[in-house]
Amino acid sequence: MELSKIYESIQEDLAKVKDNLRSIIKVDFPWLSEQLGYVVRGGGKGLRPALTLLAGKFYDYNLKYLLPMAASVELMHTATLVHDDAIDKSVARRGKPTIYKMWGEEPAVLLGDYLFAKAGEFVSDTQSPRAIKLFSQTLATISSGELSQFFGAFKLEQTRQHYFQRISNKTASLFSLATESGAILSGAPEKSVTALKEYGYNLGIAFQIVDDILDFIGTEEELGKPVGSDLTQGTLTLPSMLLLERYPENNPVKNLFNHKDKESIEQAIELIRNSSVVEECYAVASEYCAKASQNLHLLPENTSRQALSALADYVIDRKR
Amino acid sequence: MELSKIYESIQEDLAKVKDNLRSIIKVDFPWLSEQLGYVVRGGGKGLRPALTLLAGKFYDYNLKYLLPMAASVELMHTATLVHDDAIDKSVARRGKPTIYKMWGEEPAVLLGDYLFAKAGEFVSDTQSPRAIKLFSQTLATISSGELSQFFGAFKLEQTRQHYFQRISNKTASLFSLATESGAILSGAPEKSVTALKEYGYNLGIAFQIVDDILDFIGTEEELGKPVGSDLTQGTLTLPSMLLLERYPENNPVKNLFNHKDKESIEQAIELIRNSSVVEECYAVASEYCAKASQNLHLLPENTSRQALSALADYVIDRKR
Repeated sequence: MELSKIYESIQEDLAKVKDNLRSIIKVDFPWLSEQLGYVVRGGGKGLRPALTLLAGKFYDYNLKYLLPMAASVELMHTATLVHDDAIDKSVARRGKPTIYKMWGEEPAVLLGDYLFAKAGEFVSDTQSPRAIKLFSQTLATISSGELSQFFGAFKLEQTRQHYFQRISNKTASLFSLATESGAILSGAPEKSVTALKEYGYNLGIAFQIVDDILDFIGTEEELGKPVGSDLTQGTLTLPSMLLLERYPENNPVKNLFNHKDKESIEQAIELIRNSSVVEECYAVASEYCAKASQNLHLLPENTSRQALSALADYVIDRKR
Repeated sequence: MELSKIYESIQEDLAKVKDNLRSIIKVDFPWLSEQLGYVVRGGGKGLRPALTLLAGKFYDYNLKYLLPMAASVELMHTATLVHDDAIDKSVARRGKPTIYKMWGEEPAVLLGDYLFAKAGEFVSDTQSPRAIKLFSQTLATISSGELSQFFGAFKLEQTRQHYFQRISNKTASLFSLATESGAILSGAPEKSVTALKEYGYNLGIAFQIVDDILDFIGTEEELGKPVGSDLTQGTLTLPSMLLLERYPENNPVKNLFNHKDKESIEQAIELIRNSSVVEECYAVASEYCAKASQNLHLLPENTSRQALSALADYVIDRKR
């Protein structure tokens, strides 16, 4: 199902979230305004704010609190991307030059901080100490995930357990913040809060596995950045881990991590594309999506539940 | 007056704040724990948490909320220093190698994010949406101040107005957060909240002016970093601005910004040290301290008021 179809019941409210996000562009410093406009208008699928709104639709759909929460998760996501690109020295994202490429490393760090702060302002508008604390805990979790990715770069001795810990921290934590906070702010009973939190977590794991697959099998146009970026950064993901397990001796990933040559990246991409590794990774991602769908069973049957269920399929089917 | 004497009435509670700060060191990742230990044990004067506690002593001195707030302002301060050092590529602070120097730029960015997150967790423990919102607004203000410092680097066409705007954003905002939040969390009446907020603001401006003077007249040992660091980074501060006004034609600051040579830095330091520029800058700082002291008049007379008043003198007299 198309995203626009999945978003149908929250279309208008998602537009309000975007308005809220665009409101931060109005600042006294023209260069800051320019940079903010660049990141806020940058697009993206709006998955995280949509999750907050959909998760908030089972009980009291109170937009006074859900709208700033949705804006907050999207801004936190944007801020982490701005910092990640500065750290990885990535020049393109979503088919556009990154903030790092446009303005340099230093402004990217400071602009990321500014965006974290604005995300913090939005979340404080929820007036919910619980949601606010979750927000901060999630940011700590994401940062520690990114740190472990950095310190694990170009190291072969990583297990699947490391991988799942890392994507749990850097991706699934924010998905589960999005859904859990939506549940909390709509006054959901604790069982439903837990169900929606776990749904977000499982969806986030599946989303990241698919992201890591697409990094190998997508086109540069679809990805909006070069193919094989993860390997270039020295990040082992599920596909490259499976490839290492399959060919423990002469393996392009091993060669790449030892010699950092371009040819090995191309070989690794080719080998992964033409093997059953991709299929296996999709099977793992599908398991997590199935778990996510199961998490929904406890919730009242409504259009939101249908949309969240459809999102689980979308996450697997998506090409970008 | 010595800081230890000024802190006398809050000594025990400041120790509790330090315990709270040290509690964040316990994490699963040993490298993260090492880095956190390094920054949290790094020392510093503890001025900001002391301000929160002292400002909280006029009404209901409720440590349940004041302690996490104090920890929060100190951690926010630490986080901004970690990012600043990464941006300025500073190798020493408080006489020790910076995080940037110890672990590199990327971990410094991510560790700073982690510290912001932990600061956010502490502030959420205040349960006060007002204090939480102030916290986030202050972080946005600090980041925009740092951004304007970055974009203004090595530019001669800066006025005193730019300077005051910049130090207001990057320093005074956090001082006033420290005092204002202390007032709010102790249930102070609005007039007292405003008075303590303005006290913090004026003290912060004075503190930064003195910092900018010491950067020229201090010794490397006192400063814990090289003398003239601001000029080396291309940052015009009040002393260098006054020097530019005094010698508009052949001026070492002008030469430095045009040629970026080491000799001009040394000349500028010499010229500032041997002129009345230092005295003039101290006069401006003293004006702000006098304003800060006046802000206290409205408050009940107690040991806290005496301590805050003594702090205004300390800020001028300090050598580091």
